[in-house]
Order: sequence, then C-alpha cells, then structure tokens
Amino acid sequence: MFAEVNMGADSSAPTVRATVVQASTVFYDTPATLDKAERLLAEAAGYGSQLVVFPEAFVGGYPRGSNFGVTIGNRTAKGKEDFRKYHASAIDVPGPEVDRLAAMAGKYKVYLVMGVIERDGYTLYCTVLFFDPQGHYLGKHRKVMPTSLERIIWGFGDGSTIPVFETQIGKIGAAICWENRMPLLRTAMYAKGVEIYCAPTADSREVWQASMTHIALEGGCFVLSANQFCRRKDYPPPPEYLFSGTEQDLTPDSVVCAGGSVIISPSGTVLAGPNYDGEALISADLDLGEIARAKFDFDVVGHYSRPEVLSLIVRDHPAKPVTFTSASEKTED
Amino acid sequence: MFAEVNMGADSSAPTVRATVVQASTVFYDTPATLDKAERLLAEAAGYGSQLVVFPEAFVGGYPRGSNFGVTIGNRTAKGKEDFRKYHASAIDVPGPEVDRLAAMAGKYKVYLVMGVIERDGYTLYCTVLFFDPQGHYLGKHRKVMPTSLERIIWGFGDGSTIPVFETQIGKIGAAICWENRMPLLRTAMYAKGVEIYCAPTADSREVWQASMTHIALEGGCFVLSANQFCRRKDYPPPPEYLFSGTEQDLTPDSVVCAGGSVIISPSGTVLAGPNYDGEALISADLDLGEIARAKFDFDVVGHYSRPEVLSLIVRDHPAKPVTFTSASEKTED
Amino acid sequence: MFAEVNMGADSSAPTVRATVVQASTVFYDTPATLDKAERLLAEAAGYGSQLVVFPEAFVGGYPRGSNFGVTIGNRTAKGKEDFRKYHASAIDVPGPEVDRLAAMAGKYKVYLVMGVIERDGYTLYCTVLFFDPQGHYLGKHRKVMPTSLERIIWGFGDGSTIPVFETQIGKIGAAICWENRMPLLRTAMYAKGVEIYCAPTADSREVWQASMTHIALEGGCFVLSANQFCRRKDYPPPPEYLFSGTEQDLTPDSVVCAGGSVIISPSGTVLAGPNYDGEALISADLDLGEIARAKFDFDVVGHYSRPEVLSLIVRDHPAKPVTFTSASEKTED
Amino acid sequence: MFAEVNMGADSSAPTVRATVVQASTVFYDTPATLDKAERLLAEAAGYGSQLVVFPEAFVGGYPRGSNFGVTIGNRTAKGKEDFRKYHASAIDVPGPEVDRLAAMAGKYKVYLVMGVIERDGYTLYCTVLFFDPQGHYLGKHRKVMPTSLERIIWGFGDGSTIPVFETQIGKIGAAICWENRMPLLRTAMYAKGVEIYCAPTADSREVWQASMTHIALEGGCFVLSANQFCRRKDYPPPPEYLFSGTEQDLTPDSVVCAGGSVIISPSGTVLAGPNYDGEALISADLDLGEIARAKFDFDVVGHYSRPEVLSLIVRDHPAKPVTFTSASEKTED
Amino acid sequence: MFAEVNMGADSSAPTVRATVVQASTVFYDTPATLDKAERLLAEAAGYGSQLVVFPEAFVGGYPRGSNFGVTIGNRTAKGKEDFRKYHASAIDVPGPEVDRLAAMAGKYKVYLVMGVIERDGYTLYCTVLFFDPQGHYLGKHRKVMPTSLERIIWGFGDGSTIPVFETQIGKIGAAICWENRMPLLRTAMYAKGVEIYCAPTADSREVWQASMTHIALEGGCFVLSANQFCRRKDYPPPPEYLFSGTEQDLTPDSVVCAGGSVIISPSGTVLAGPNYDGEALISADLDLGEIARAKFDFDVVGHYSRPEVLSLIVRDHPAKPVTFTSASEKTED
Amino acid sequence: MFAEVNMGADSSAPTVRATVVQASTVFYDTPATLDKAERLLAEAAGYGSQLVVFPEAFVGGYPRGSNFGVTIGNRTAKGKEDFRKYHASAIDVPGPEVDRLAAMAGKYKVYLVMGVIERDGYTLYCTVLFFDPQGHYLGKHRKVMPTSLERIIWGFGDGSTIPVFETQIGKIGAAICWENRMPLLRTAMYAKGVEIYCAPTADSREVWQASMTHIALEGGCFVLSANQFCRRKDYPPPPEYLFSGTEQDLTPDSVVCAGGSVIISPSGTVLAGPNYDGEALISADLDLGEIARAKFDFDVVGHYSRPEVLSLIVRDHPAKPVTFTSASEKTED
Repeated sequence: MFAEVNMGADSSAPTVRATVVQASTVFYDTPATLDKAERLLAEAAGYGSQLVVFPEAFVGGYPRGSNFGVTIGNRTAKGKEDFRKYHASAIDVPGPEVDRLAAMAGKYKVYLVMGVIERDGYTLYCTVLFFDPQGHYLGKHRKVMPTSLERIIWGFGDGSTIPVFETQIGKIGAAICWENRMPLLRTAMYAKGVEIYCAPTADSREVWQASMTHIALEGGCFVLSANQFCRRKDYPPPPEYLFSGTEQDLTPDSVVCAGGSVIISPSGTVLAGPNYDGEALISADLDLGEIARAKFDFDVVGHYSRPEVLSLIVRDHPAKPVTFTSASEKTED
Repeated sequence: MFAEVNMGADSSAPTVRATVVQASTVFYDTPATLDKAERLLAEAAGYGSQLVVFPEAFVGGYPRGSNFGVTIGNRTAKGKEDFRKYHASAIDVPGPEVDRLAAMAGKYKVYLVMGVIERDGYTLYCTVLFFDPQGHYLGKHRKVMPTSLERIIWGFGDGSTIPVFETQIGKIGAAICWENRMPLLRTAMYAKGVEIYCAPTADSREVWQASMTHIALEGGCFVLSANQFCRRKDYPPPPEYLFSGTEQDLTPDSVVCAGGSVIISPSGTVLAGPNYDGEALISADLDLGEIARAKFDFDVVGHYSRPEVLSLIVRDHPAKPVTFTSASEKTED
Repeated sequence: MFAEVNMGADSSAPTVRATVVQASTVFYDTPATLDKAERLLAEAAGYGSQLVVFPEAFVGGYPRGSNFGVTIGNRTAKGKEDFRKYHASAIDVPGPEVDRLAAMAGKYKVYLVMGVIERDGYTLYCTVLFFDPQGHYLGKHRKVMPTSLERIIWGFGDGSTIPVFETQIGKIGAAICWENRMPLLRTAMYAKGVEIYCAPTADSREVWQASMTHIALEGGCFVLSANQFCRRKDYPPPPEYLFSGTEQDLTPDSVVCAGGSVIISPSGTVLAGPNYDGEALISADLDLGEIARAKFDFDVVGHYSRPEVLSLIVRDHPAKPVTFTSASEKTED
Repeated sequence: MFAEVNMGADSSAPTVRATVVQASTVFYDTPATLDKAERLLAEAAGYGSQLVVFPEAFVGGYPRGSNFGVTIGNRTAKGKEDFRKYHASAIDVPGPEVDRLAAMAGKYKVYLVMGVIERDGYTLYCTVLFFDPQGHYLGKHRKVMPTSLERIIWGFGDGSTIPVFETQIGKIGAAICWENRMPLLRTAMYAKGVEIYCAPTADSREVWQASMTHIALEGGCFVLSANQFCRRKDYPPPPEYLFSGTEQDLTPDSVVCAGGSVIISPSGTVLAGPNYDGEALISADLDLGEIARAKFDFDVVGHYSRPEVLSLIVRDHPAKPVTFTSASEKTED
Repeated sequence: MFAEVNMGADSSAPTVRATVVQASTVFYDTPATLDKAERLLAEAAGYGSQLVVFPEAFVGGYPRGSNFGVTIGNRTAKGKEDFRKYHASAIDVPGPEVDRLAAMAGKYKVYLVMGVIERDGYTLYCTVLFFDPQGHYLGKHRKVMPTSLERIIWGFGDGSTIPVFETQIGKIGAAICWENRMPLLRTAMYAKGVEIYCAPTADSREVWQASMTHIALEGGCFVLSANQFCRRKDYPPPPEYLFSGTEQDLTPDSVVCAGGSVIISPSGTVLAGPNYDGEALISADLDLGEIARAKFDFDVVGHYSRPEVLSLIVRDHPAKPVTFTSASEKTED
Repeated sequence: MFAEVNMGADSSAPTVRATVVQASTVFYDTPATLDKAERLLAEAAGYGSQLVVFPEAFVGGYPRGSNFGVTIGNRTAKGKEDFRKYHASAIDVPGPEVDRLAAMAGKYKVYLVMGVIERDGYTLYCTVLFFDPQGHYLGKHRKVMPTSLERIIWGFGDGSTIPVFETQIGKIGAAICWENRMPLLRTAMYAKGVEIYCAPTADSREVWQASMTHIALEGGCFVLSANQFCRRKDYPPPPEYLFSGTEQDLTPDSVVCAGGSVIISPSGTVLAGPNYDGEALISADLDLGEIARAKFDFDVVGHYSRPEVLSLIVRDHPAKPVTFTSASEKTED
C-alpha cells in the first residue's frame, strides 16, 4: 500500500535544474567532439540547467562492436593499429582538452560532468571529469573495474579517485556503467554523502532502469544516468571500423546504442526519461528536500546501517607500481 | 484459485521448481496460521515444488496499519496491550511451532523458507526459518535492521544469523524487506555464495520490483520475493485492531497489502509474477545454469570485485548483552 | 505526560497471588523460628497465596546492632563468642532444616523463598533458598557481596549461585539487600529472564522504595521486597546481646527494624505496602501480562540493549579455593 | 533503622552551585531557542551557578506527540515533510550553533551541559554537548538507544561518545532519558568516575523520580535531571503540528510536558525540586564531600564490585559503516 | 594490643580430652612395640582420653642416626642388611598388626592415631593409621614427601591418602613431620575441614614449635604434635646399629630425640607441652567452640580465601605405575 | 632514640644490610608523615642500610580502634565523615606522594618498601609500594584480603599485584598483615622466588612471631616484619577520633600498638628484634648464603613439592569491573 498523501510543493528546500545529455561521440575526432559538447552545453544552459552530465567516454569514444583483433591466444596487426588510433583520440589529464572543458563550464556557468578516455602514458582509463561554473577543473573519477573486453583497452582505477564534491547545488559524484552494480563502491560514495549521483553508462538495456531506480532508493539520492544514442554511421565505415560479428546486419541508420538516459528521484520516481528515441537533452528539476524526506525512512550509512556488524574499508590512497621517494606525492580529490 | 505460470526448461543444468506463497496470516491465531501454511505447502508440493518461500512474518503476523499507541514521548495502555497480544502470537525458536514446521517440510518433502515472528524473552525478532525435505530445522536469519515503526516492536539481529545454506538444490539464504536495500548485508550473502536469494517482504509498491531485478543482476542469483496479500478483513475488526489514520476509509474488502510476489532470474528476467491480484502460489522452474552464464560478465565478489580497494568486514559472532561463562555457546549458521 | 488510557483488566494472561512476609526471627532459636515460619506460611496459604517470600536472614537472624566486638585492629572475646552462637544458629544446606522447609512448602502447596544464614564449615553465608509446591528444594542464592560490617560475619557468594528458576508461576530469582544496588548482578538476573524478582532485605529506609521501583521499571519485572519488622525485645536482652552505641536509648518495645515490605509491578505501580507498622503479610495479585506490556517499551536485555557496545561477562562456575579431582563437582542452579 | 546522627556542615570539602533548567524549546526556531538559552544561562550565572544543565533536545526540540505519519508498513508524505523540517532545525557538531554555545559558556563563566538534536548528514542524533567556563567545547554524548518512536527519527550512538569530563568542579557526564534505565551504560559511566551525573530527559512521570534517587544511591553521585516544561502553545499550532490522538483534548495552555526537574545527593536526599509548576531554574549547592561519605558504604565499581564474577566490556571505539584509510580518525572524548 | 576480655568458660560447645604420646619404639621388635603401645593407651584411657596420638614411625621405628651405608655413588653390604631388618620390622596394611591395633582402640574406646612403617611389597611408606573406639580401622595417610635421607628408605605417598575423618569428636587428619611445612598439603587438609590436626613428627628443635603455633592459627584447628623421646639405648647397641658420625659422642643415656610434643588451640595458645624431659603422656581438654571463635577472624578456605585468584588442585586419585583393567579400583578414604 | 642490634658477618656470600622501621604515622597528616619517613630513611641510610621496610599503612594511617560508626545494619554520619577524612589522607598511585617517595629512595640510595593507603576513586586499598636506589617506583602490592573490620574501609586486591622484584640485593616481595596467614598467597610468592620477604603488619601479638619464624622456614627466605609502635596520643584526641569501647581506659601515653618488628633468617634464627619498647630502627646484616643452605633440606616449590598431586593456580590478570576496549591495558608486576 504505502499510500502517500500529496502535500503539494510548498517545501522551502532548494531546487536544482539538471540535464542529462544523450548524444554520440564524433568518433576518432576529439576536436569535433568537443565542439559538439559545447553546442549541447549551450543548449542546456539556455534552458536554465545548472548541472549537465555527459555519457561514458563521450570524449575519446566508446569503441562499441570492436574486438581490437583479439581472440584467446591471438591478436591481429589491425587490432593493434585500432588501438593506436584510439590512444591518439584520448586526452591527457590535465591537458589542453581539459582546459577547454573547464572554460566551457565557466562560459555557460554550469557544473559539468564529462565522460572521457584518459591517456596516462600508454595506458588508457575510462574517466569522468568534474568542472564548476567558475571554470575550474575539480577532479576526476577513474572507472575502477572495466567490464569484459574493456579490460584489454582500459586500466583499472584505484581507490584514490572516488570523489564526491561538495558544491553549491549539493554533493556530486559519479560511477561509470557497471561500476553501478558494485555494492561496495556505491557504499563508499554514500558514505561521502553523495546527493546527486551521476551514472554515465554504455548500457541501454531495459534492466538498467531497475538498477537506476534501486540506487536512488538505496542511496536516498538523485540518480542521473547518461548514455550515448548512436547509429552505425556515428562510427567510421567498414572496413576501417568493424562491428565484429554483426557488421553484416547493420545499415548506417541501425541503432547500435539506444540511450535510455534517465533522471530518478530519491523516492524512486522517474522525473525524466528514459529516452530510447534519439539524441536528446533530458532535464528535470531536483527538489533537494526530497533527500531528507527519503532518508527519514532509510539512511543507508546512517540510521539504517549496522556498523558494528557490517563495516566497509575503503583504501583510498593512490596505488602506484613505482614510487620515487624524492617526489612528494600529490593526489587529487 | 491460484494462478501458476509454466516455464519451459531445455537446459542441461539442473532445474529446481520453486514456489513463492502470496497469502495472509490468520492474525492473532498462530495455530490457524500454521494450518493454512500446511494447506498451501501441500498444494505447492502437489505441483512438484522443491522449494516454498513464505512472506515476512507469515507466522505471527505483520501488524500493518497499527501504531501500537505510540507518539513521541507518549504511549497508550491499549498500545501496550496490543503488544502483549502480538507477543503472545509469536513463537519460540526452537519450540513446538518450529517442530511442526519441520514436520511439514519433511511430510511434503520440500525446502521451506518461512517468515515468522520470533519471541526471545520479551523481545521479538522478525525472523526467517529454514527447513529441509528431511524434516530438519536448518537455522534462521533475524532481520538486522527493522524499518521505521517496526523498531518499536522488533529487536535487531546480529551478524551471527546471516546464513546461506548449501542444499541439494543450491545455496539458499534470505534477506527480509528493506534489508534488501542494505548493500553491505547483500554483499555478505553474495560472499557466502547465495544462489537462491529469498526476499520475504511487506513492501508491495512498484519500486520494489526494481530492487528485486537489481539484486538478481548484482548478485547473479535467482531472487524469490514473497509478500502477503491482505484485505482489511484479514485483521481483527475495529476497535480491537485499528488501521490508524486510514481506518475510516476502509471496508472489510479493502486491499491493505497488494502482494507483488515475484521470481526473477540472474539475468534480470522476470520468471513469474509480480502478482497484485490476490492470494496465489507463484511458481517457476529455476535453470541453475543461468548463474554461471550471468557471472561470466559480472561476479560481484569474484572477478568484478576490487578487494585491495574495497573490503567488507562482517562481524558474525553472536552479540549478547550478557554471557554466562558456564554455558557452551551455540551459534547457528 | 505519558498519559495512559485505562483499558480495564480484560487481559487473558495468568495472575499469581503472592505474599511477602514481614516478621522477625526468633533470635538464637532456629527451631522456634521455623515454627513461626510455618505459622506464617499456613496463614498466607489460607489466603490463597501461591508464592511466599520471607526476609533476609529470617532463619539464623540478622544480628542488627551488634558489632561482634571488632574495631580496626582489635576484637574482643565476647565478640568471638557472639560469633560462635551465631554460627550455631545457622543451618547446613542441605540439612535437616532445609528438609523441614521443603516439607512445609509441599504441605501448604506454595513456592517458598526463604532468607537463611547458611553454614559452610566455619564460614557463614547470607543465603536465599527456593522451594516448590511439590516439596522440593530447588536451589539457593548466596549473597555475593555483604555490606559494611556484614563482611566480618559472612563470606562472599560466587557466580554459581545466581539462579533464576522457571516455575509454573513465572521465572523467580532473588537478590539480597544491597545486592539490589549492583547493576551488573541485576543484569545477570535480567538475562536469565527473571519475572518475579524477590528482594529480601534489611534496609527499611525510605530510599529503599526508590530502588525497588527503579528495579521494577529497569527489569520489567515484579519486585517483592521482604524485610523484618523487629522490636528490641525480639533480640536477647542485654548484656547477652547489645545494640552497640544505641542500647541505652532503647526500650524493649523500640522498633529496631521498621519493615517497609512492598510489592511493585513492572510499570512501577505499588501493588501492596510499603508497611512500616508491624509484623504483617503483604499480598497482591500479579497480572503476568504486565510484563509483556512493560517490555514493549523497555527490554533491558532485549531490544533496549546494545550488546555490541556494552556486554557483561558472568563467570558462573563455582570458585573454590581447593578442588579435589576425584570429586565430581555438583553445582546448584 | 539506619538512623544517622546529624554531624552539622563542618566538612572541609568543596561545594559547587549547580542549576538545572526547566524550560521549553522554541520549536522549529533554533536561533530563537539559542537566544532563550542565553537568557536562562545569564540568569543562572547571576545567581552564582557554576554548572548549568539543560533538558534533552532543548536545541532542535523534542517532537512530543508527533508520530511522523508512520504506522507499521506505511508512512505519509506529511510525516516525511515533518522530518525534513525537524532535520532543518537540527545543528551540525561542530558548527556555528556549537560555536555560539561555547561563547555563551565562556561569557557567563559556567560549565554548560546542553541537550541538542545533532545532524550528521541525514541521520539525526539526540546528543548532549559539554562546554567549559573558558568557552571551550569539550565533547558530546550521543544517546545510544532511542526509545520507542524516537527510533524512527534518531540514530543510535556508539560506544565512543560516553564521556566523563574531569573538570575543576568534579567529573561530569550525562545519560539521556531512558538511557538512565540501562544498567550497563550507567556502569560504564560509574567506571569513568562520574561525580556529577546529568540526566536530561523528556520523562515527567512520577516514577522518574525513583530512578533518579536510585541512580544517586547506586552511583554515589549527584544526579541532576533536567526536563522541559511545555504547553501545547510552545509547539506550532495545528494543522502544521499535531499531537496525534490527543490534539482534540488540548487547549493552547494545556501542559504537554510537566517537567519534574530535580537535583539529588549521593545519599538519595532531594536537594531541589522536583518542580511540576512551570518553567524554572532549579538550583542547589553540592557538597562534594558527600561522595566519599556515600562510597564508604557502597562503591559500585570499587569495593562493592565483584569483577572476578561480573565484568563489563565497553567497546568504546567509533563504529562507522565505512572507513577511508586515508583519513586519520579523530574521535571525541 | 588485641586485648581480650576473659569471658569465663560458660560456653556450651563440647569438649574433647586428647592425649599425645611421647615415647620410643622398641627398635627392631614390633611385637614389643605393640605391647608398649597398649600399655600407653590403657594409661591414657584411664585418664579419660578420647583421642590418643602416637609419634611418627612408632611401629617400625624411626632409624635415627643411620645412613644405611650410602654415600653418593656407593653403598655397603651392611647398609643393605640394615634395610632388610628394617623392612622385616614394618607391617602390612591391612595385616595382623593392624588388626591388633584396631582391637586395642576398641578395647579402650578411644580414637587412635598411630605412626607406622608400612610395607607394600619391598617399598616402605611412613604412614599414619586411624582407628575408632568401635575397633574399626578407618584408613591411612602415607607421607607424601620424605625428607632428605628418608627418601632412600621410604616411598612417596600419592594424593589418595590425605584423609580427614568425620568423627563424633570432630574432623581428624594427620600430616607427618616436614609435610607440615608444605602449605599446599595443609591447605588440602583445611579444605577437608580438619578440626583436630595431628602432627606426628621426628623434629624436636625449638623452631618446630613456631610451625605448630602457626598451623593452629592458619588452619583454625587444634594441633597435636607427637614426637618420640629416645635415648641412645632405645636403639640396638653398636656395631649392630650405628649413629654414624656421632656414635663416639654418645653414651647409652644420651638423648637422641628430645620430644617436644605439644597441644595448641586454634587461637595459638599452648594447652599442653612442649615436653623435652622424657617419655610422657601430654593431655589437654579441647573446647571445640574455640574453632568457630577463631574462624570468625580467619577462615583459610572460607571467608579469608580468594578462590578466584588463588586455587589449589588436589589430584587425589591413586597413582599406580601399573593398572590392570580387569580390576575395579578400590581406594581408601 | 632508636636501638640498633649489630650482627657479625663472616660469610663469603653477599650480605645485605636491612632495616625495619617501627614508627607511627602522623595521623590525618600525610605531608608530615612523609617528612617523618624521610627522617627515618636518612637515619637508616646513615647506618649503611640498603633496604628499608616501613609498616603497613604508614602513609595514610592504620585507623586502629575506630569502628567507623558501623554496626550490623546501621551506620552513623560521623562514621561516614571519618571515612571522608581517611579517604582524604590516602594517596593516588601514581601521584605526587609516590613521586616524593621515589625521590627519597634515590636521594638516600636505598631500596624502599613502604606501606600506604592507596586511593583509587572512592575505594581505598592497603598497599605496599616498592622503590629502588635509583629513585624509580618499581610497583605495588595490594592486600588481597583485608581482615575483619578492615573490609569496610579497604577494597580487595586482585592477582595482578603480587610482585616479586629481582633486585641487586635479591628478590623482594611483600605480604601484608594476615595475608601472611594465607598459604596459597605465600606459595605464589615462593614460586616467584622471593628471597627477602617483607611483612608489614599491624599485629603486635606474641603469636605473630611464630608465623614469622614459620614463614622463614617454609619459604627458605629472610622475613622482615615491620609494625608501628603507637601511643594513644599519636591519634587525634577524642571526640574527633575514638578508640571505641576502650577510649575510657586510655591515657595519652597508653600504648595502642606495641610493635614487635623483627628480622628472621631462613633457618628460623631471629636476627634482630622483636622490639616492644618504642619507636626504633631494627637492623641486621642478611647473609644471602643462608638461603641455599636452608633450601638444601626443604625447597617448598622445588624438590619438596609434589606438583603431580598438589598444584596451585594463580590468576594474575587484572580483574576490573569495567573494561574499555580502547584503552591499552597496563598492569604492574
């Protein structure tokens, strides 16, 4: 039953307008992708958005359908060349592309959460960058566990980049794609007080919606999931780029990633989306008073925890294979 | 009377027929409730079920709508008398009712998972009991954290009763109602290898389905959620028993708990239910091969964990306020 | 405010009639004291009592006002002779006086709780004995910590004699005099489930009533406190027996112990007494349903405990200075 | 008899003037409540008080009569909004309101013991704060076990905030409301040597006095119990704020919390109060020599303990659901 | 100071007349020794004695001054022959000499405590035998630890023969010679409740008196120490029997064992003896009420013990090098 | 003023000059008592003493003759005030008085064994402190079992403070007053190898000498017993301080404690004392070679023990009623 009396919207708590971007990378063309990002950002800002969240790997691209030429015990020269080009499209953090993104956030006066492929030497990371409306780069989250074949192209983040930023519109953090299925990672973010939980993803299946709703309920937070909407033609044409195994079934207009971006409230109510129709901006007004109302019933790291029975240790120091003792360590958070 | 969904089963892995019971307690009448449990068990067994899961608090009852006369800083004598009667309906573990349930499981040759109200002196616990087809009582799980007003009628389980039992039909465990929202508790059960995850509940809202689907995906396990379906007339009539605040809006036929019992596979597929129509047996054949297929992609405590970053401590010793050194401690698991 | 609506006495829980005896020992004359005990028991049984509680040291006597000739670093021969006579008035457990008390309980078909001075070799203990209506001796509680000057005449009980007996009229235990001020001892008894808490005492001050009420509330149990009512003439006349320091102010009729025996319910309501007027039988009907109603709010070792923060260890094995390995240890409980 | 000869007041031990404040929160208005606290503090200091104790939840308020819209298995949107407002009235520790309280203590040169509602993210705690006459915040005690419906609005403190502060006027600690009924918690405080035992409460029933007297005797300490005196009009008028179940019987002048604040000496003597008449300052001079005189007879954790039989373990480390290894843990005491 | 007021002898406790025999063995002549024992017994009985205690090794003899021809790494044929004769003078238990001693006790109606050399195959034991006035053999105590050179002629008793016999004149036990210096052995006897502590000995030095007094105080018991009074002529003349090293200094009348037999009360008062003058019967009346008066202050295994700190284990089962499983063990006590 | 016995010393084993102090506390004046201790220490050191032993309770005082106003079941306000003053005269360990004593030992370069009244909260202990010539506090022994009326003013030590210190002059330990009658406690000290056994006492009766001699023989150790010599005028005059029962018989010069301090060798030889004449320093040279000579015959925990029959368990962990898990336990030994 759990009937609820509608009390109207007379709450005095602040409201935040947020936009989730559902759009595709310009594959292998990072400058063009940044231009596209700026157009979308301008549009969202024009609508009044204070927070804009982009999909996983928007800058650098999500190499959907590729297998980088690997089978068990074998690899191809083309696959290696595919990786070289993918590596070339990635960005250094910090670096000029990061500067440009920071400037955009400042220009349009929004909080910006952007999925990128980060290049650290010759290892790539699936990363999310955070910027504030004053044009500052705040920090990053590196995906801690890539899924399946992602493990051959991306490294694993450590515990030092699971930030939650206290901002003027609430506490913001991000988990990428199936990281959202990791209960201990989510709990680390809950413990940091996340209120606006961003979930850039590449999963457009219907069951993804269940996880997003569950996280909103579990965390007592707003959940903003951003996915790309891509057709075959958003990737380079064959034979340069191949959707291995399915290429023969695809036309240029075939949808290869259906989106499903969504915004959900702490009580599990879908505020906007999911959209499976095309590129789009999905927006909603977030009544931050909802958080207290939801946590009254269930505060996962507060009154509903049992720390004396169940306690989580988060090793959040940087883990590096080589440490030079002369260098004073500087870590981001 | 009871709808049953039939699921084809061509897998070579073992298949288990399971039934989730959606039915109401005979409130304040524990012997009659046990009689009803036996009728339902017989029916499920007749259909070939090997595992039968009952809702939260089926024996002892879920005192929906009651407030036990408490407001902040106040309590009424009627509320205390309500508690005395509720206490009288609860069962000791072990005790004669447990013996009867064990005998039932043995008679009908099923694994039985039964929600009960356990009486331990003058504190009650919301507990799930487990029985095997040989008629043995296997052990129990006490709810570790009651929700909201439940905290005034039930105690809190400790870490010593979070069992997962290895049985001939797979590893079985249970989490009760909003315990299912506790990511650390679920992770403890995943670590114990739960394959058939039972979720007796009292939550019939639609968002409950999202959590059930999410848990199936996150845990790579079958999820079997059992809820009661109750009308106002399943509770004693006013003024003996009052649905405070809503009593005036109810007729004897008003639905006060709509069920929503469901069975979901490790890939997030709904196998049977949710049923919101009435008392019912919801059954499905569980292809245990699904578990390996799901964990190939995502094994939450295996290849998809990051133990060097995120590690959970579970204190699973009994916590007792008073320990007598002469007693040899016996703990269940 | 804590206002409570009076719900009348329609409860279905059982009721027990209990009597607290307020009377004086026949000092130095144990056979006569036992005769008097039988007369009082007969009277209480005639009134329908199912449980009769006698004061501390009723058999053997409470040597009020005596100082046994001790000052720091000194002792007198008269004091030693006083002890020899006091030792001679004490009883062995088991022994013929225990047999007689058991027979009395059987004859009058009551549960009997009797304060005695127990002789174990040349050390005395302030002990309470328990008997059932079938005429069995159930066991004993030895005072674990005598008060002040009592420490020179009585030994200290160990953790093996803190029994709570499960009987047909509820769980019965006893704490003697200022033992009732020991929070850890009380908690041990609460953990054993005491429902009828007997408090034989020698303290007749008004503040004693506060402790009795507090214990009823804290333990959620009935509290039955029995004290002697004694005049000077109930003790041998001077110079054989001296109330040191006050003898000169006393006439034979002077009250030297004013009683104050009382029966209190788990909600802190005084059901009978306190009586400060003379020897008396104080009786009340105990509605056992009160216990569940009280524990709903506060269950000191149940839902209101925090065992993961505060836990008590009770070493309840016998502590003996010398153990002979050939003897099979027998301990009472 | 326990007669005591009056020896006059020629003791050379120090005397402390203490005041217990019996007054109501300005509900939902924390700044005004702090203004009122300062007026009362000034008045007490003018009278020469060295220690001022306020009631439970004085800052933040005790939401008497509210039920926050919960029944078993149900909750209302109004109840959730009530919680949001209550959450907004609570204070962070440390935080600006704590700074203001510290400044007040310094300005009026008193030890200040103040009941507050502490906000820690979205979980609230019923907390007592301690300040010294130099204007320092000393630390806090969080209620370890809320009572009844309080469990739906307040979290549970752990063992790390059960402080006893050694000050120039003696050792000061606090237990809140029915925590005072927890024998193991009290024993932990006794073991820390509490001499001035503060008992901020919301219980104005007569039986509360018995517990206060008992604790003074048991602990051999001064007990200072502070309760609010509130009329219906001290809370927002209906329908914003409702005394559920009794609202219809109340006028604006109805007394909803009758006070009963009291100061008791280690021998159980009532030094001031209980006052059931209205808002008031209750003051007394505490002769600290009383403590030694009382403990001569009964030292609950000293000569009257039996540690080899009964020993209490206090787990006084902080219990947190999530620990970040990079953070150096700081705990208060 | 410990001044004691003389209270006269108006005590009602029983009094026992006891005699300690100070006399010499007829060396190498056991029948003559038994005749002498009977004469002494008759004399004591004629005086009214109810208890008669003989010295260590009265029957069989204490081979004072002999070295049985041993030096380190050497032994002589004469020494071996000395042992053969000594072995021949010893008695079997049971056996005809034991029967004769039992008959004597019955004839003179006394409790008899007799030091003997017990022969068990080819090992000898220094033993004390106990008999009652009805002519029964009660049991024995074997010396558990011989002193110095005794270790080459006597075996070591085990824990199964440390009896204390409950008799009509009190609880009687015995420790032999320097066994009396063994605090753990004494404590075992205290724990068995010894009231009349017999100390047959061969030590006639003055410091022996200090130990006897100390034991009376420590054990709160009467101590009866019996020693032989021997001149050189009580042993065979040289060269058959040699006092090695001192023979040349001795005349037939030289005193080789000076006696010192004594009776001491529980308060340390010497009641009779010590006698260093010749063969004698030393007698005293034992006021058994002294025991309670003494234990009032100090009860070594009762109120003055600290069993939770210091506890003694006594392995009182028989220790045999070879056990035949077909034999049901019979042990004496 | 102080008599000193000189003992020749021709042994080749090391010899230690030791002094036992026989002097009275300055009652109720701890600073003056410490001044007096220093004067006595200086005098002993001037004579060449390496070890100085003071009586029981020298600092803090032995409240001889007082009864602290208690009779069975009664106590007076004056008695309580007496306790408050006595409590005020006691010292904390560690604390400033301990620092001063350590400094004294260092200044005069002696081992110092000092009887004190130790204050632990509101419970007092009769304690002996040990210091070395380098000015270090070594540790303490708390009396494990007070005698008679002492039980109302002193707590009971546990097994953790029965130290024997290995020093440059031998192994030193202490047992206080009638602890010396406890055979199991002495055996614990023997097992720790005590060579210089200190026996601070308050017992000046003649029988005390027997126990001292016996212990020297039993333990094969030097025994140094120190007692106060006090006259009535060494205590405050009546009515402030009363020798109850005997006050009327006393003049200011009446001897109320006659001393009897003594030094005895392992063979039972009295080396110095006993002195019953007045305040005195009793000194002797201890030939440590005596120990081996004595143990050749009798080694109570060595060749003369029978561990397979008689074995003692010493529980030497601290026993505390309340343990805080955050505190690192520190125990002395």
